[in-house]
Parts: sequence; structure tokens; C-alpha cells
Amino acid sequence: MSDTNTQASTQASTQATTVMQRCDYLASFSDDAEVLFRPFLSPATQRLHGVLREYMQAAHMSVHCDALGNLIGRYVSPHPDAKTLLLGSHIDTVVNAGKYDGILGVLIGIAVVDALQDSAQDTAKSTALPFHVDVVALSEEEGVRFGVPFLGSLALSGQFDEALLELTDDQNVSVRQALTDFGCNTTPISNAAYHNGTYRNGTYRNALAYLEVHIEQGPYLETVNQPLGIVSHIAGQSRAHLTFHGEAGHAGTVPMHLRKDALAAAAEVVLEIERLAHSQDHLVATVGRIQAEPGAINVIAAAVSLTLDVRHPQDDMRLAAVQHLLDHAQQVCAKRHVQLDWQTLSEQAATPLEPELAESLQQLLPHAPTMISGAGHDAMVIAKTIPSALLFVRSPNGISHHPDETVLEPDVAAAIDAVCRFVGHLAETHSK
Amino acid sequence: MSDTNTQASTQASTQATTVMQRCDYLASFSDDAEVLFRPFLSPATQRLHGVLREYMQAAHMSVHCDALGNLIGRYVSPHPDAKTLLLGSHIDTVVNAGKYDGILGVLIGIAVVDALQDSAQDTAKSTALPFHVDVVALSEEEGVRFGVPFLGSLALSGQFDEALLELTDDQNVSVRQALTDFGCNTTPISNAAYHNGTYRNGTYRNALAYLEVHIEQGPYLETVNQPLGIVSHIAGQSRAHLTFHGEAGHAGTVPMHLRKDALAAAAEVVLEIERLAHSQDHLVATVGRIQAEPGAINVIAAAVSLTLDVRHPQDDMRLAAVQHLLDHAQQVCAKRHVQLDWQTLSEQAATPLEPELAESLQQLLPHAPTMISGAGHDAMVIAKTIPSALLFVRSPNGISHHPDETVLEPDVAAAIDAVCRFVGHLAETHSK
Repeated sequence: MSDTNTQASTQASTQATTVMQRCDYLASFSDDAEVLFRPFLSPATQRLHGVLREYMQAAHMSVHCDALGNLIGRYVSPHPDAKTLLLGSHIDTVVNAGKYDGILGVLIGIAVVDALQDSAQDTAKSTALPFHVDVVALSEEEGVRFGVPFLGSLALSGQFDEALLELTDDQNVSVRQALTDFGCNTTPISNAAYHNGTYRNGTYRNALAYLEVHIEQGPYLETVNQPLGIVSHIAGQSRAHLTFHGEAGHAGTVPMHLRKDALAAAAEVVLEIERLAHSQDHLVATVGRIQAEPGAINVIAAAVSLTLDVRHPQDDMRLAAVQHLLDHAQQVCAKRHVQLDWQTLSEQAATPLEPELAESLQQLLPHAPTMISGAGHDAMVIAKTIPSALLFVRSPNGISHHPDETVLEPDVAAAIDAVCRFVGHLAETHSK
Repeated sequence: MSDTNTQASTQASTQATTVMQRCDYLASFSDDAEVLFRPFLSPATQRLHGVLREYMQAAHMSVHCDALGNLIGRYVSPHPDAKTLLLGSHIDTVVNAGKYDGILGVLIGIAVVDALQDSAQDTAKSTALPFHVDVVALSEEEGVRFGVPFLGSLALSGQFDEALLELTDDQNVSVRQALTDFGCNTTPISNAAYHNGTYRNGTYRNALAYLEVHIEQGPYLETVNQPLGIVSHIAGQSRAHLTFHGEAGHAGTVPMHLRKDALAAAAEVVLEIERLAHSQDHLVATVGRIQAEPGAINVIAAAVSLTLDVRHPQDDMRLAAVQHLLDHAQQVCAKRHVQLDWQTLSEQAATPLEPELAESLQQLLPHAPTMISGAGHDAMVIAKTIPSALLFVRSPNGISHHPDETVLEPDVAAAIDAVCRFVGHLAETHSK
């Protein structure tokens, strides 16, 4: 493998340059004239498919679009009944998006398939692999158009509930209609599934694993000065809406000891939320929104509402943290004669990714830290039915969902190199 | 005096019943069909003047409306060049007002003049006083119509800046035009002044003192179980607008130790504001408004703005408190790598009321606590040029500026009794 590794590194650098150029170019495929915005099944997505199809075909892949609009390029194994290694990420974006969130993983997948062939050619080795490699450009992850995220990966992993087809966008177009208009055959959506080993439209779909490369969207890798990170878990998430009901009063006439100040109570809870999260590894907790009523400079706050977002890779730890915060908030409110209304908005369990795959990546990338992903990704959904891995690429300044979002070309080369070696390693394992 | 005192108490109870009935009735003089709202120089105010004029004339007062729309009833002393004791408060209201804020003090003034005559009649004493008593129904205190408060008391106390005449309301009507339309002769406004001993329109205006009775608008008297309180100072006030500039970030992907959370910084400062005010007698400090940007449940707050209102009867103490809070906020922000923008909105000096008058009231009301007024009142403005006193009447539940605002009839009787005795005491002093 060592020659191949060195070779792949050179290949990877060349491929990284291509990937960066393609990210720049594909950012022009937008449904908004001013900013990058490419929702699920949009006209810009249709045009993007044309270009991605060309890239895939140039890398000797056969291409098709599945029942949910996922564009899939297959680099075929000589063994028709072989399982399939999936490489990819999503191609939809938020409004005013950056150039790398999602599509970087798709372009790296294509680059890897390209690099593997170049590398084999240079070393006169066979390009044959003991598994198919499908590069998947997942159609929907951000949840922007229909309000529900992960539609593409739900279909790919056989978890798509057909009731979702009836969701409508703000133009009252259903998912079903949008798919039909896009040219997808939606009968049935389960044709898109990879998890259970079936032929669909002449293609054998039985996933070996899913490897996603995605920008970190946070500052951790930059802080530890590493280009890549291996994600072991996607954090679980609790969301709540807290309202503190105190008593309004004149800021000048009500003495301090007679106040029931809803904002002071809320401030105490905000600080405990921060303190608790600081005190536990991997716990993050955020109050992003706060509002005081009546909200006048000279009136004591009668009511304050705020939002709470708590995440941890272990569900028991997350739930214990939330319980602690509820207990604490109740104590604060009891002490202050303020009423607490705690409304749980959502509880989402943590998702462990496949330890064996993470272990393989770790062997190839001994310096890469093992990380928790605080944000959801397609790998979180796909991991439910297909062994999945997630490799993060450093996000300079941690910026994401913003035009200033970027990646460093050497980091992209490192990712391509790592995935190439991962594929080689997997091929060796499966050839034994 | 002791007989008169007892007598006055009975008179006061009768008068209090009348005052309560009049407060109920006069609350129907509103410019809004749904709620009580009677701004400066409004049609409802014009109608109210008619009724107040009748009340004043029935109490043997001669009535006129001054250059700024203050309605004044004079109970004449046999000595034309005598000074004048002013009793009263304001008659304008906020939107959706209560029935007692302001007008209670005017009606108590009329009741006192009435009670003094009844009492004298009963005891066959002379009703002659060594000073005129003018009951003043001040035209403007709340600052609602033209955005500037205390217009009535500024004119009465000779502090009215004629530039204020050019202020316009939201219908683009100027103060000058509104006064003319109301029937006031505005040339010059200084005709309304009492402070410098001059004849204006045949009336000698030279104030001896101003005594205002006003609802407390806070819960203190209720807490100490007293009907009346004697105000020694009107608190000074500092107002500021604070903005904390942190760094936005994904609530799931930015580890706690890498955050620059503007809301956590703000919460720390909110609690210090409360702690400091608790630690010092007579200091009150309030954060009534707070807002986080961008204000999303899953985004760390990039910026938080809040308002600060600090009041204390001593200016040096208030300014030291504000300086402490600024220092503390700067330390918090430095520690958290958050930027602080502290904008001072206003600084208003504390106003001591006349100690001799307060002392007289204290002798008449040995159980009444001496208080600080955290809210501004006409007495605050008038005290600049005329010796002034302010007597608070208990506000059940501390409610004010709200239809639920109320007073207890026995408390009103106690106030009438106290003012009658105060007038008697002042008459004795001035007869010596």
C-alpha cells in the first residue's frame, strides 16, 4: 500500500485543486440571483445534476437519478452481486449558503473514484474493486423547502415514510409532485433503498458502508490544528422553551426586595446552563433567543421567555443535564417567587457511527482527533440501517451556512487522500 | 388645634367618600371610548375642566385657567398680598390609565378647602387664612402627547422654556397651537409662574409652598402597613443602553470553551445589577428590555442589547453604582472576549424636597414612613423654585398605570385629614 499511498497523495493534491475549482463553479448554480440558494428539486438543482452527471461519467461511472432525486454515479465492480461502498453527501443548500456544505463531500467522492483509477493506471494495477463504489449526491438534507430535513438519506437508507410525499412547500407543491416534475419515478420510493440487498431497475443495491466527508461547521479542528477529524457520534439533542412569569412593576417605585423580576430569574438560569455545559466533556447547551415582556426600560420584566438547546453524544448524560437544568430552574423560581413554564420541544437520541469504520479511519489518520458532531448530518440518518462513517474537514473560523464558509485546499487533498486509502484498505480487507 | 383635628377627621371621612365618587365619575372623561386616556389639552380635558370648575366654585374658590392650561381654583386669603399655598397634582393620563394617578391629588386639594370651611363653620372659627390656597389641576405630567413630561409644572414653577411651544404631537399640532385652540393666552407663558411674587392678570402669585398628594405607584406602604408616606427625595436616575457583541456560532458544533456568547455575558451583568441594588439601601436598578441577535434556538447569540435604569436619592451614590456596573460589565466582557458598547441615555439628578415641610408632615403623621420616590412627579419639578412636599397614598398591590389601580377610602380620608392639619399648622405658624 505504501507506494499507492504516496501516489495517492500526489493524485489527491491534483484532485483537490479540481474539487476547489468545481466548488467555486457549482456555487453559481443557484435559484437566487444574489446569493447561493439551491433547495431540493429546484431548477438550479436540475442544471447541477447535468454537470455532476458529466463529472461522474468522466470518472467512468454509470449515472442514474433515484426515486427521491438522489443522483448516483456507480463505479462498477467486476462482481455484479458485490456490495456497494457509498461515498457522498447532500447537494441542497440553505439560503445565502457557503460553497462547501454538502457538495464538497460529493465532489470528493468523484475525485476519489478518479484518483483510484489514475493511481491504478500509473502503477499498472487493476482498477477492479471487490465492491461497487456509488457516489451519492443526496437530494435533500437542510429541510428548507418542505420543513423536514434528510429526505434524500431517508430514502437511501430505506426509512422514508411515504406520508412525507404529501408535505407541501410554500407554493403548495407536494413532495410527490415536485419529484414527478423533476422526472423521478416515485413508485415506490423504496426503490431508492440500499440497505436490504435488492435489484432495483437492474442495479444491485446492498450497501457495504457509507462514508461522508463534510465540513466541520465549527472551530474545533482549527483549534487543535488538524485538517481532518473522525466523528464517532452524532450528539443527541433536547430542545425546550422556558417562560418565567414574574410581576411587572415600576422600575423606580418597587424596592428590590419586593420584586419578582422574571429577567433576573432567567439570567440566573442562563448562567447555570452555561456552567453545567462547561463542567462536562462533550456537553453543549445554548440559549439563543430571549425576550422580556413588556420590554420597557422603566418596567420590571413581568415575563421572560427563552430557548434551550442541549446536546451530548450520550443520551443518558444529555437527559441528566436537562433534568438538572429543570431542577435548578425550579429552585431559582421558587426562591424568587417566579413561576416557571418549561415546555419540551423535542428530544432526539444520539447516533453512534460504526466503530469499525472509525477505527479504520483512525489507523489511516493517526493524528486526526475523534470528534462528536453536534450538528445532524446524512450519516446520522443512514447509520440507522447502513454502517456509516463521517470525516470532518476543518472549517476556517468555524464559519458555516454563510458565504464566508471556506475550506483549505491542502485539507481537501488530505481528505481525498484519506478516503482513497480507506477505499484501498477496505478493498484489501474484502479481498482476503 | 386638638378639637379641630378630631373634627377634621370626621370631615375627612365624608370628604373621602366624595373624592372616591368623583374619581369614579371623572374616569369617564376619556378621549378613548374603551379605556381611560386623557392627554394634555384634549376634548375630554376640556369637559373635565368644566366639572372641576364647578367643584372648585362649590368650595368657594375663584377659578381660572393659566397660560399652560393649568386649572387653578383660589381660596382667597383676606390678605391680598399673602403668599399662596399650592395643593394639587396633574389631570392628564397615560393610555389605559387608572382612576387615581394625578387627579386624586387635585380632588383631595378641593376636599381640603371644603373641609377647612366646614370645620371652621362647625367650630364657629374664622375661615380666614394668612395665605391663599390655590388648588392646581396641572395640565401635563405624563409626557404622552408631546413626548416631554411636566409641561404644566414647568410653567407653574417658572421653568418653562418657550422653545417647548414648538413641539408637535403625532397630528403635527404644536403645543402653542393646542394651547390657543384650548383657549389659553400663551403670551407669555411666564404668566403662569408662581415663584417670583408677581401680579398676573390681577392675581398675586407668590408661592409659599407646594404640597402634592399622589398615589405611591409601588408596594412599599402596603408592605409596611401604612396608609401614607412622606417623600423626602425624588430619586435621581441614570439610563443606559448596553450592547454585548460576541460571536455567532452553531449551537451544536462550537465547544463551550471556544464560545463568545453575548447572552451569557449579558446574564452575568444582569445579575450583578440586581446584586448591587440589593446591597445598597434606596438603590434600585432594573433591566427591563433584552434582545438577542440573531435570536435562533440553535445559534449562539452574536449580540445582546439590554436597557439599564438606575435610581437613588443621592446623586453620588447613583453615579458610583453606575460606574461600578460599567466596570463590572467591562471585566465580564474582557474575560469572555466579548465587546461592550455602553451608551448613556440620560442622567437626571436627585431632587430633595423641602425638609421643613417634610418635618411638619412627620409631626402630624408620626407613623408615616419617610420615603424616596423612585418615580418622577410634579413636585420634583416644582421643588426647583418653590418649597415642595409630596405625600404618598398607599397603592394596593402597587398597581399603577393600569385600570386595576386603586386606593382605599380610609387612606384617602387619612390624606385629607393630614393635609387639613398641615394647612392648619401652617396657618398657625404664619399667624405667629
